[in-house]
Amino acid sequence: MSNKIKLGVVGYGNLGKGAVKAIKATEDLELVAVFTRRDPEALELDDPDAKAVHIDNAGNYQNDIDVMLLCGGSATDLPEQTPYFASMFNTVDSYDTHAKIPEFYQMVNEVATKHHTTAIISTGWDPGLFSLNRVMADAILPNGENYSFWGKGLSQGHSDAVRRVNGVKNGVQYTIPSEEAIEQVRSGANPELTKSGKHRRVCYVVAEKDADKAAIENEIKTMPNYFADYDTEVNFISEEELERDHSKAPHGGFVIRSGNTGEANKQIYEFSLTLDSNPEFTSSVLVAYARAAHRMSQENQFGAKTVYDVAPAYISPRSAEALRRDYL
Amino acid sequence: MSNKIKLGVVGYGNLGKGAVKAIKATEDLELVAVFTRRDPEALELDDPDAKAVHIDNAGNYQNDIDVMLLCGGSATDLPEQTPYFASMFNTVDSYDTHAKIPEFYQMVNEVATKHHTTAIISTGWDPGLFSLNRVMADAILPNGENYSFWGKGLSQGHSDAVRRVNGVKNGVQYTIPSEEAIEQVRSGANPELTKSGKHRRVCYVVAEKDADKAAIENEIKTMPNYFADYDTEVNFISEEELERDHSKAPHGGFVIRSGNTGEANKQIYEFSLTLDSNPEFTSSVLVAYARAAHRMSQENQFGAKTVYDVAPAYISPRSAEALRRDYL
Ligand SMILES: NC(=O)c1ccc[n+]([C@@H]2O[C@H](COP(=O)([O-])OP(=O)(O)OC[C@H]3O[C@@H](n4cnc5c(N)ncnc54)[C@H](OP(=O)(O)O)[C@@H]3O)[C@@H](O)[C@H]2O)c1
Ligand SMILES: NC(=O)c1ccc[n+]([C@@H]2O[C@H](COP(=O)([O-])OP(=O)(O)OC[C@H]3O[C@@H](n4cnc5c(N)ncnc54)[C@H](OP(=O)(O)O)[C@@H]3O)[C@@H](O)[C@H]2O)c1
Repeated sequence: MSNKIKLGVVGYGNLGKGAVKAIKATEDLELVAVFTRRDPEALELDDPDAKAVHIDNAGNYQNDIDVMLLCGGSATDLPEQTPYFASMFNTVDSYDTHAKIPEFYQMVNEVATKHHTTAIISTGWDPGLFSLNRVMADAILPNGENYSFWGKGLSQGHSDAVRRVNGVKNGVQYTIPSEEAIEQVRSGANPELTKSGKHRRVCYVVAEKDADKAAIENEIKTMPNYFADYDTEVNFISEEELERDHSKAPHGGFVIRSGNTGEANKQIYEFSLTLDSNPEFTSSVLVAYARAAHRMSQENQFGAKTVYDVAPAYISPRSAEALRRDYL
Repeated sequence: MSNKIKLGVVGYGNLGKGAVKAIKATEDLELVAVFTRRDPEALELDDPDAKAVHIDNAGNYQNDIDVMLLCGGSATDLPEQTPYFASMFNTVDSYDTHAKIPEFYQMVNEVATKHHTTAIISTGWDPGLFSLNRVMADAILPNGENYSFWGKGLSQGHSDAVRRVNGVKNGVQYTIPSEEAIEQVRSGANPELTKSGKHRRVCYVVAEKDADKAAIENEIKTMPNYFADYDTEVNFISEEELERDHSKAPHGGFVIRSGNTGEANKQIYEFSLTLDSNPEFTSSVLVAYARAAHRMSQENQFGAKTVYDVAPAYISPRSAEALRRDYL
């Protein structure tokens, strides 16, 4: 029997696929099974060693799995799946509906406390690493201001909105942080910025044959909520170009805090990610936090936890001695 | 009686002065006294409310102080002061002799474990926040490489070396990361870089009257260990220019991890600091970690700790609810 920490993956979408790959890249973790609501036979797992199991049979794996990585969607999957799985397993999820996190936390905390499991919620990069840096920067530099910028990144919601426009065959939308706004923040000027002042939107659109491109561009640029308040650029490209240049899911962004200490010394704290693949990075974070869920549950630290509750040593595969010797 | 966490500051050098200012910038912490080996009467404290006490009387304050911030030098002060104070108080220090951290940890851990105190060692930015990011990035992206760059920053040791050169009246040295090396790393190329390949050195020198400037420049540029292996620039300036343009202690740098996930997706993780004042920022980190030392000791988490052992929530003045609601 191996000493590895045994993991299950729930849901085989973008994050689930990323999680299977991320587990393979480690030496201390192993995948027991992928659980899905679909027919497990029909699921084409990239990894020949991986096994797919119907989600209804997950309960049989309580003795075989240390931590379940919950890779379902935040809108409707996780509000059901996290409490359900936290009643039987330690869990890690990436619940990202920021406004509903307090109630999600409370619901999961009740279940996990009652069933003596450790449920780390809302990990990933935002929420997750960005949240961590917002709090650390605020704690260290009380006289200052936090700024979060997102992008360059593919936005699923805005791409969907573009594709719903009349005459659009296909398309994607990138959110791009304004270089000017970033420079202002980095200079320590502490500007007041609105969300639309911080970001531009760039669309790549494949038009239907004979569609009115001017009308499409106008409809996109004036779309309320999505584009009207932003500096928006619309580019028309061919289906081949879309396939060739825009089929990845890059993302990233910055958290910057600009603060003052003493009389007027400017101190700039900055954290940034530049990701070729948003879901592969997010699931790599989930996989690292699985170590923490396992270790904290072994120390009887039960209940719902967030990145704020996890000492960094818990997510590392290395020993405390090695960390002090080689990384401090 | 106030609910604030009560702090003492040991040593009134650059970090000690920064700590006094940083405590004043918080709402939940208060300064009880500054302890010094010098005549406390002769110490000119910037803050009219602050009190200076001789270090020999520190033992009398065990009931009045929750955490001692140890602001002595790493070379000779902290190896004595940290174990001495950890036998009576919770402590935070910024011990930065990287190679000796394991033995320093062990020595402090024994004392703190025996006396039921919490001693957070080697905080600040490097060691400290940089160390934290090296470990988190490594845990999340196992297939990758860490790079640390320092600067632009004033280096005390190299400035001293410049000032020892014959014919030099005064001078400073800045370490500057190579833009080219940073670009290579950010591109995800994972280059092999030596320390001298990553940094340049720029000196501002005030020469003695009638000194041979060519000889000074040559002696600096060929100085073994300090400059010979580096791309070094020497600029001669006046005493007034030195005073006007080079009397602050800026510093900073980057930790970058470039890693791959899945087949070949590049993921760049980057943390950076741009500091007008190195000691004021460092002491702001110490002050934030004082909250953690106090809280962890209240939870009986005794012994020596590093940034790896401290859950981020412990350093924040905010409640767990507020962090989840406003920062996650
Ligand atoms: N915190 C962060 O930084 C961060 C970053 C990115 C994403 N997220 C969160 O992660 C969540 C999941 O993202 P995702 O991109 O993995 O979502 P997704 O691909 O839509 O997958 C969600 C679920 O849908 C099901 N599914 C996937 N492909 C399917 C298909 N072809 N047919 C039918 N069902 C399918 C899967 O469940 P079954 O296998 O059970 O069918 C899967 O678990 C998002 O909702 C977001 O909230 C967080
Ligand atoms: N981890 C990090 O990121 C980081 C960053 C920066 C520095 N550091 C560490 O912090 C340590 C302290 O740095 P620092 O710049 O504060 O050192 P410093 O100014 O030289 O002060 C060190 C000690 O020297 C004494 N002192 C200061 N000024 C004096 C004076 N005019 N005359 C006589 N004694 C004086 C003080 O003790 P008394 O009051 O008892 O005399 C003080 O505690 C460094 O050794 C370094 O290791 C760490």
